[in-house]
Amino acid sequence: MKKTMLLVALSCTIITQAQDTFTELPDHKAPVAEAWEGVKGIQAAWGTSDVRYAWHSLPDTKALKRTETLTAWRGERVSTQAVIYSAKATDSLTIHLTPFKNGRFTLPAEAVKSSFVRYVKTDAWSRPDGRGAGCGYRTDHTLYDSAMVADIIDPHATALPLGAMSTRSVWVSCQIPSNAVPGTYSGTLCIKEGKRTVAKLPIHIKVIDRTLPHPEDWKFHLDLWQNPFAEARYYNTPLWSDAHLAAMRPSMEMLAAAGQKVITASIMHKPWNGQTEDHFDSMVTWTKKLDGTWEFGFEVFDRWIEFMMSCGINKQINCFSMIPWALSFPYYDVATNRMQVLRAAPGDAAYEEMWVAMLKAFSKHLREKGWFGITTIAMDERPMHAMQKAMAVIRKADPEFKVSLAGNWHPEIESDLYDYCIGLDQAELLPQEVFARRKAEGKKTTIYSCCSTHKPNTFTFSVPSEGAWYGFYVAGTEYDGYLRWAYNSWVKDPLHDTRFRQWPAGDTYMVYPYGRSSVRFEKLIEGIQACEKVRILREEYTATNNTAKLAELKTVLETFNFNSQYTEDFSALIRQGQESLNALSNK
Amino acid sequence: MKKTMLLVALSCTIITQAQDTFTELPDHKAPVAEAWEGVKGIQAAWGTSDVRYAWHSLPDTKALKRTETLTAWRGERVSTQAVIYSAKATDSLTIHLTPFKNGRFTLPAEAVKSSFVRYVKTDAWSRPDGRGAGCGYRTDHTLYDSAMVADIIDPHATALPLGAMSTRSVWVSCQIPSNAVPGTYSGTLCIKEGKRTVAKLPIHIKVIDRTLPHPEDWKFHLDLWQNPFAEARYYNTPLWSDAHLAAMRPSMEMLAAAGQKVITASIMHKPWNGQTEDHFDSMVTWTKKLDGTWEFGFEVFDRWIEFMMSCGINKQINCFSMIPWALSFPYYDVATNRMQVLRAAPGDAAYEEMWVAMLKAFSKHLREKGWFGITTIAMDERPMHAMQKAMAVIRKADPEFKVSLAGNWHPEIESDLYDYCIGLDQAELLPQEVFARRKAEGKKTTIYSCCSTHKPNTFTFSVPSEGAWYGFYVAGTEYDGYLRWAYNSWVKDPLHDTRFRQWPAGDTYMVYPYGRSSVRFEKLIEGIQACEKVRILREEYTATNNTAKLAELKTVLETFNFNSQYTEDFSALIRQGQESLNALSNK
Repeated sequence: MKKTMLLVALSCTIITQAQDTFTELPDHKAPVAEAWEGVKGIQAAWGTSDVRYAWHSLPDTKALKRTETLTAWRGERVSTQAVIYSAKATDSLTIHLTPFKNGRFTLPAEAVKSSFVRYVKTDAWSRPDGRGAGCGYRTDHTLYDSAMVADIIDPHATALPLGAMSTRSVWVSCQIPSNAVPGTYSGTLCIKEGKRTVAKLPIHIKVIDRTLPHPEDWKFHLDLWQNPFAEARYYNTPLWSDAHLAAMRPSMEMLAAAGQKVITASIMHKPWNGQTEDHFDSMVTWTKKLDGTWEFGFEVFDRWIEFMMSCGINKQINCFSMIPWALSFPYYDVATNRMQVLRAAPGDAAYEEMWVAMLKAFSKHLREKGWFGITTIAMDERPMHAMQKAMAVIRKADPEFKVSLAGNWHPEIESDLYDYCIGLDQAELLPQEVFARRKAEGKKTTIYSCCSTHKPNTFTFSVPSEGAWYGFYVAGTEYDGYLRWAYNSWVKDPLHDTRFRQWPAGDTYMVYPYGRSSVRFEKLIEGIQACEKVRILREEYTATNNTAKLAELKTVLETFNFNSQYTEDFSALIRQGQESLNALSNK
Repeated sequence: MKKTMLLVALSCTIITQAQDTFTELPDHKAPVAEAWEGVKGIQAAWGTSDVRYAWHSLPDTKALKRTETLTAWRGERVSTQAVIYSAKATDSLTIHLTPFKNGRFTLPAEAVKSSFVRYVKTDAWSRPDGRGAGCGYRTDHTLYDSAMVADIIDPHATALPLGAMSTRSVWVSCQIPSNAVPGTYSGTLCIKEGKRTVAKLPIHIKVIDRTLPHPEDWKFHLDLWQNPFAEARYYNTPLWSDAHLAAMRPSMEMLAAAGQKVITASIMHKPWNGQTEDHFDSMVTWTKKLDGTWEFGFEVFDRWIEFMMSCGINKQINCFSMIPWALSFPYYDVATNRMQVLRAAPGDAAYEEMWVAMLKAFSKHLREKGWFGITTIAMDERPMHAMQKAMAVIRKADPEFKVSLAGNWHPEIESDLYDYCIGLDQAELLPQEVFARRKAEGKKTTIYSCCSTHKPNTFTFSVPSEGAWYGFYVAGTEYDGYLRWAYNSWVKDPLHDTRFRQWPAGDTYMVYPYGRSSVRFEKLIEGIQACEKVRILREEYTATNNTAKLAELKTVLETFNFNSQYTEDFSALIRQGQESLNALSNK
């Protein structure tokens, strides 16, 4: 019951959301007129979710098809794209889906959705000369190629015209109800120019008699860091006001529906030194009283955690950071009646005094709220001696505190870390016995990617299927999930331009304002769902001692081994993986 | 017993105080060599407390005398100056006083003090062309004449050499014990160059059989505003730390010994828009909680008030300001975890909401501390509608709050003001019935002077006796006392240069760091003591129905009427007033 309500609430929220329409930036890459010769009227066909269709290029018509057929588990979200293109400018186009019917059964109307995919500005992995690749500053965007890419899935754009020699894709997704009757459901994507129907594209969804649990029951440990400060700025709402929370809800419910497990909390000011457009403030107030003792307030922290839980994210709370990049800790000083800054490093007496006081108060508060068991004190990669000293301080305050780290592989402190996330490039360093022990202890071990990974990744210029790779890769390893450092650290104008002063474009956020998902986010979810399916199949085969199927599954997953990240064709790899999984899914 | 202890504590504090020696700035006014011709060796004689002896001018030797005779009540502090001068540079000079004896009676050693008077830089009332007079900015000090003037009474300079053709005065003061046996006490001021005594100056103090009460029992309502923030900066001590309070104690005990009645408290940030070198912060913490309600902290306020009371200032607490010059109110905002500023004016809903909340909490706190009855919500002159609206807010929060104002004469709000201080230029505007009614109601009515009054005043270039005029003037009126806006708002380098970016030099402070009094402060006290003596004599004559003496007293005071502020010779006026009072004091 609860799960159904969440899904309904989700769609209602998105549907009733303020429309916030926007106009895309122009595409500076002009169409080649010859390529469009012979294209008559408004054309439409089914493409694939693997492709970012270019705005002013004729799509590869040989790869398009008249009818789409998808395969899905009950509870799964499956997606595809239709492509509309025209040599001449059109009037406003609208899209809608007919009911999806399987004999006397019909999928609920809110289960199927069609949205125009919108173009947004991106850059590239490196400059044309190969320099300035990946991480690092990109303050002069002109040094990099830029492009308008199809990434924003926009439920609010109800009618859009096509310019001359233009292509526009339509994202069609279906969230199969958990209680759907298996069988093939058929519907039609209707495309109209004004009142005239210009295309009717049939689509069939084969619903398999298997059930993917609700995202909150997925075992995949997804951790995309949330930035509530970016949302407050974008929506121009006072921090932590009802309006702020209401404005954030679509983002956070989208994240919950992707199986997010972790709430990102900041327990001091600027844990990452303000690297994002909107830095993180402390959700805990630090007050130095006149007698020199510390007092801590958890009002904001509680409001944030309770809000996130109300969005369906409630498994873990990661609190940043005892060892921020800049070791400066602002606090409200009663004596001077203003913010002051304490500069102290792990090992300093002042550092220990302050953090022991804070963590003791925090532990007490978390225990009162019933959250202590799901909370970790979170660190980023820092010098070993600093991490060890910080850990000693944590233990001094409360030996039962869980600790998390996203960083390099450090055998010295591994056993201290409840939630340990390793960069993809070091994913193979962990000995098998470590995984076994950590699993036995109920600890989480995950991988992350960031600006340092060219492919696979979820930049706005990444091939969409790269995002799906992570779920398949995790499925074939002992890892528990995936972490990315920025779910919604929006840039200044996130709907128009995904580039930032640092890192490849799109690095800082995966979804767009007003509940808009993205092609890359949906493909990431596709991979996570695949991982859950593998788990369920593996559990079944293991329970039934079906060694043949287990071997078959293993073979499939071997195509997603560590080296598969160097494939030339992620889309083919993922497509093949999905087909194999579908074949295995048939009972 | 308490009073004796305070006096002992006072002298101990000063004696054990860190010495903080300093070197005076050079005097750019070179001596005229001819004037010094014929001056043999080191000369010394008694002068008067009325004169700032110039550093490099030969003093008016005809006005000097070999023997000094002072007249004092028991409990009174009487002062004079000796002058040392030499045509040739000297070795280090030291000074000391022999015991003051009256037959078998001796004044306690700590009752008599001799200190070198030090030179400090001042400017002038206006530029040489008469422009830029009084108030207003003086950012370019070169536009004004400057001079080194004798103002700092320095108990820490134990040995000073004289340069060639130089003068140095010695401030000698005697705090007659309340229990001193009347009679003439004789002592000697000894001046040595190295080990050689160069002068022995006899001094006699005629102690009259009348007793001036301890300063805390004086009725004169003295209100010199204190600036603890300046002291914290000067001594480089953390605000409100024990070190800060200890460092401030000499200043505040000197102020208590002058009969100060009022503690200056800031209940919001920058009540005067940061006009002083060190602005006033709020002694009350204002916190806006996440739910939008206000919370107030009084830790600092309590520490300040309790400290001031421990210094002997405990009659009244004036809290600034509901209507600061800039209507912006910083507060600590829990939501954003930083200081925010509310801009609101009297009459705004936000202003009322905030101040009603604050004043309710403040009233409750003050009542718990037992201070409500002595506390006023203090305003400076503001537009009438703003003051009336602020008053309505005060009444809404707690109708019993006392209110004070230093400003113009406003009959419309006079009855609302418990403590009403009027600028000297408007001192004659108040109708007699207002005084009568206010006295009957126990309200205080005082006068103030500031940068707008050329004379009499207490700038560093003012004739010292100008400061004494206020006490005599108040004695002859219905006013209860005197207010000046800055007791210790020190400039950047208060021991060397009293000039500031605004106002005539010395306007912002009356005493110097490390418990150093000043010629002008001592003369101000002289006037206050005269006022107390008048009160006591008047009470006695009234009680004994001594109309002759009452008439005589009235005649004396008429020489200090409103127009006496325009006298050409304040020193003569004060001297004559003191002589008349001494004559009246004889029983």
